[in-house]
Amino acid sequence: MEHLTRNQANSTPLTPLTFLERASTVYGDSISIIYNNTSFTWSQTHRRCLQLASSLSSIGIKKGHVVSVLSPNTPAMYELHFAVPMSGAILNNLNFRLDHKSLSVLLTHSESKLIFVDILCLSLTLNALSLFPKNTQIPKLVLINDDTLAIHQIHPPPENVNIINTYEALITKGDPNFKWIRPESEWDPITLNYTSGTTSSPKGVVHCHRATFIVSLDSLIDWSVPVQPVYLWTLPMFHSNGWSYPWGIAAVGGTNICARRVDAPTIYRLIESHGVTHMCAAPVVLNMLSCFNKTEPLKKPVHVLTGGSSPPATILCRAEWLGFDVCHGYGMTETCGVVVSCAWKREWNKFPATERARMKARQGVRKVGVAEVDVVGPTGESVKPDGVTVGEIVVKGACVMLGYLKDEAATWQCMRNNGWFYTGDVAVMHENGYLEIKDRTKDVIISGGENMSSVEVEAVLYMHPAVKEAAVVARPDEFWGETPCAFVSLKDELKENEIPTEKEVNKFCRERLPHFMVPKTVVFKEELPKTSTGKVQKHVLRRVARAMGSLPIPPPLLLPSRI
Amino acid sequence: MEHLTRNQANSTPLTPLTFLERASTVYGDSISIIYNNTSFTWSQTHRRCLQLASSLSSIGIKKGHVVSVLSPNTPAMYELHFAVPMSGAILNNLNFRLDHKSLSVLLTHSESKLIFVDILCLSLTLNALSLFPKNTQIPKLVLINDDTLAIHQIHPPPENVNIINTYEALITKGDPNFKWIRPESEWDPITLNYTSGTTSSPKGVVHCHRATFIVSLDSLIDWSVPVQPVYLWTLPMFHSNGWSYPWGIAAVGGTNICARRVDAPTIYRLIESHGVTHMCAAPVVLNMLSCFNKTEPLKKPVHVLTGGSSPPATILCRAEWLGFDVCHGYGMTETCGVVVSCAWKREWNKFPATERARMKARQGVRKVGVAEVDVVGPTGESVKPDGVTVGEIVVKGACVMLGYLKDEAATWQCMRNNGWFYTGDVAVMHENGYLEIKDRTKDVIISGGENMSSVEVEAVLYMHPAVKEAAVVARPDEFWGETPCAFVSLKDELKENEIPTEKEVNKFCRERLPHFMVPKTVVFKEELPKTSTGKVQKHVLRRVARAMGSLPIPPPLLLPSRI
Repeated sequence: MEHLTRNQANSTPLTPLTFLERASTVYGDSISIIYNNTSFTWSQTHRRCLQLASSLSSIGIKKGHVVSVLSPNTPAMYELHFAVPMSGAILNNLNFRLDHKSLSVLLTHSESKLIFVDILCLSLTLNALSLFPKNTQIPKLVLINDDTLAIHQIHPPPENVNIINTYEALITKGDPNFKWIRPESEWDPITLNYTSGTTSSPKGVVHCHRATFIVSLDSLIDWSVPVQPVYLWTLPMFHSNGWSYPWGIAAVGGTNICARRVDAPTIYRLIESHGVTHMCAAPVVLNMLSCFNKTEPLKKPVHVLTGGSSPPATILCRAEWLGFDVCHGYGMTETCGVVVSCAWKREWNKFPATERARMKARQGVRKVGVAEVDVVGPTGESVKPDGVTVGEIVVKGACVMLGYLKDEAATWQCMRNNGWFYTGDVAVMHENGYLEIKDRTKDVIISGGENMSSVEVEAVLYMHPAVKEAAVVARPDEFWGETPCAFVSLKDELKENEIPTEKEVNKFCRERLPHFMVPKTVVFKEELPKTSTGKVQKHVLRRVARAMGSLPIPPPLLLPSRI
Repeated sequence: MEHLTRNQANSTPLTPLTFLERASTVYGDSISIIYNNTSFTWSQTHRRCLQLASSLSSIGIKKGHVVSVLSPNTPAMYELHFAVPMSGAILNNLNFRLDHKSLSVLLTHSESKLIFVDILCLSLTLNALSLFPKNTQIPKLVLINDDTLAIHQIHPPPENVNIINTYEALITKGDPNFKWIRPESEWDPITLNYTSGTTSSPKGVVHCHRATFIVSLDSLIDWSVPVQPVYLWTLPMFHSNGWSYPWGIAAVGGTNICARRVDAPTIYRLIESHGVTHMCAAPVVLNMLSCFNKTEPLKKPVHVLTGGSSPPATILCRAEWLGFDVCHGYGMTETCGVVVSCAWKREWNKFPATERARMKARQGVRKVGVAEVDVVGPTGESVKPDGVTVGEIVVKGACVMLGYLKDEAATWQCMRNNGWFYTGDVAVMHENGYLEIKDRTKDVIISGGENMSSVEVEAVLYMHPAVKEAAVVARPDEFWGETPCAFVSLKDELKENEIPTEKEVNKFCRERLPHFMVPKTVVFKEELPKTSTGKVQKHVLRRVARAMGSLPIPPPLLLPSRI
């Protein structure tokens, strides 16, 4: 069979960009995007993306150039997921909640040629560009105006900054019959994303057309997304390219509901007025929706895909009551979105609500398009599937990034040349083959030689009726090595007698956890420090805990017997 | 970005075989297969396939060997779609309705090492093997017994044939912890299928792991198959590997309902008793279900995917009334199943039933995982999308075969080295981008210089209330070159006065077709000759029509004016 191998007809590079033309043929008159009072059809979105790609080509954007975007979830943000790669360029979504110094570092590192800037991100961007070293080429800007905002004038930019045009003018000038630039290979880069918290040495994750194609389709199957869903964008599209759903929703001709703000009243209003069927949401958004004072469940159930960290059981129960059908997944920028999800077993339906929530909090199993996922010990062997032995999550499959831009060392470190991508996340494998994250490698607390997962301690803290948010980190200890230190914010509108003391929280944990896992320190805070993507910044808290120094050495009699 | 390219972690070969282990983890206790009173769970199916693959390895089956199967849709037939390639071998599903001579040709051509034979296919297989040339290695046999049949003894096979074991014994002997053989490349062959009607020069279509992986996932999305469907096997699995659904149903942990017979009462009984949600069905099966005397619609709607030829509007209307939600697709063995489907537009729901059926009869648009599909003229340019200009359907994408086994010329002929696979099917492109098949290239009838589509003439014949089946072929004509000749079978249980004459059928067509397209000859037959996959054998009818010779030359006055 030697003569039978790939040929020109069957090796057309896989790319999610082909989804758009098809959406325009099949769903041409259906609504593609709704944003305030603006809406587009799929044939309009298709035409606009072709025009924009054409304009990008005519202003000199070429295959392999990096084009950056700073924007909340607007129609432009959505369209750029197609238009930029259709011009042959690499889409670089940037987090607009970064400070201008970090942004400047990333823009320099990426060698971005052009930045699409939402009008509300303009001053941030100009500040970032002002930090560019003298001899560096400053990227050009395209301004994304927004008629729904009452901003009609902007300050003229500094002399060395060139705002070449507005977004809509670029579209108008473009050729709707433009022949978009297909990738020469499916391994050609399509996106560049910087992972959060990396200002000193930026980690730019590069993905290829093949990865985004497969992850887009896989994500639709895993979540059973039917044709023409109504999808609400609460997940920022800059966050791991919206977990690949910008392309996925085009594949099924859905309607994208875009919004600048994602507070609870806005989300509930959009759900009701547009008949939302699906949404991805960070746990913090799910938390917000659950805590919102809503006395009646939703009229129609809404499928929610959440990820990032395990939602506490209490939040899951409340969300379920409200009519959110929550699916819990796990992934990272390096894996092009969600790669493991808690595929529901029918037999779990019989369980009581808290047990259901406990199951749902597991990260689960690899999605069907992912080749392999395992939890391995230090020498690379699978850990015992006992729900107790911890190891590192490793992944194999088309979803894994090409690597970190300009950082072969970091790329090598997580690939280790043995065919696996090492996630740095610590998990156990349950007997039923479902994995559950215990911690980021660096979040493990080692107290008296015992490894403990800060996530488990946090889960107990979340069960306390007064606790809004909780994060547990290691506090250095002369005797134990480390002890768990809890940072806690309390719910608003608590009555005087509902506010717990440190002692009461300690007692609450003692009743529910092994002694060594009970936080020896509890710090109450108004608000926990968070990254711009809503993750608690544990490194900040770790610094605070470190500054506290060791607890006094306890008298021997109080030593728990288990050590 | 030059250092960023494929690496060991992201280039694990794509293969649908990974679906099985995941099904066993997620749906382990759910039913995978039901056959009469036998049923299996997904964890059992997983274990059985590993054991079988292990046994195949221990009897010497190696990577690249061809392993053939002759079986109706039984659990064994399903399992072999995993077990054979898990041993590294290539699955060669054979049509058990072939005669023993054809079968002998295919078995020789494929150089099959081993044949799994259903007990009812044994004598056919032995007859085929008896035709093997003297010095040829005769493949070994594995007998698939069936407890639900009252056969307990078989005639001893001839001396030179080695029935090495029974199917169940091979499973029992196998190691459930067998490390299945992953493909080294995703372009490695996984299946070999012979296309029908090719006894003289067999065309063995070879597909690779990558193609079956992508087509399996694409087919789930295109048909909006949710998790855990109940899937009824009426489509023979030997037919283009069941359009890749053996793998697809594992991906979503569905239940496979298997059956030896697929008559209307059996199908209706299985639908009711198992709550079938999905089935693929050849048009002849849909026809059978529609003509069956059923006075009430189904309790729950059943999604039906049909392909092969356009279902006549009357059949579609009746099927819709019965509760079948029919989706119509197009593909061929060379494209690994369905590649074009009539994606439904919401706005069509407003149409009256006949108009809906007219839309549904179109083959439609490429599925989302297929790179490109077009209808092109002789010089390779796209035909005008006017619904009239005919051209040949061409396809690009991962779904296209590696090629024909041992036939580089035939492979080259349909690939032509220009990046497209030429299907040999003739179609028009409608203004809305949906294509509609007009004919196989060889089914076009050319009368007085006018090309006509036999399918269009057949569609009119199907509108006649007495017609059950119709096929139109060319009859040679001294004057016109060719004239259309119709072969018609009539419905059962017609009253005397409902049976039409040739003249009446002719008149019926004359009222609905251009003169030159009206069949000049109408032949009534009890039953039209069909291939074992239910396709009308037009080559047989063409031979009959050729034998009729020319019609007498008509007097000049009767010549229609349009020529």
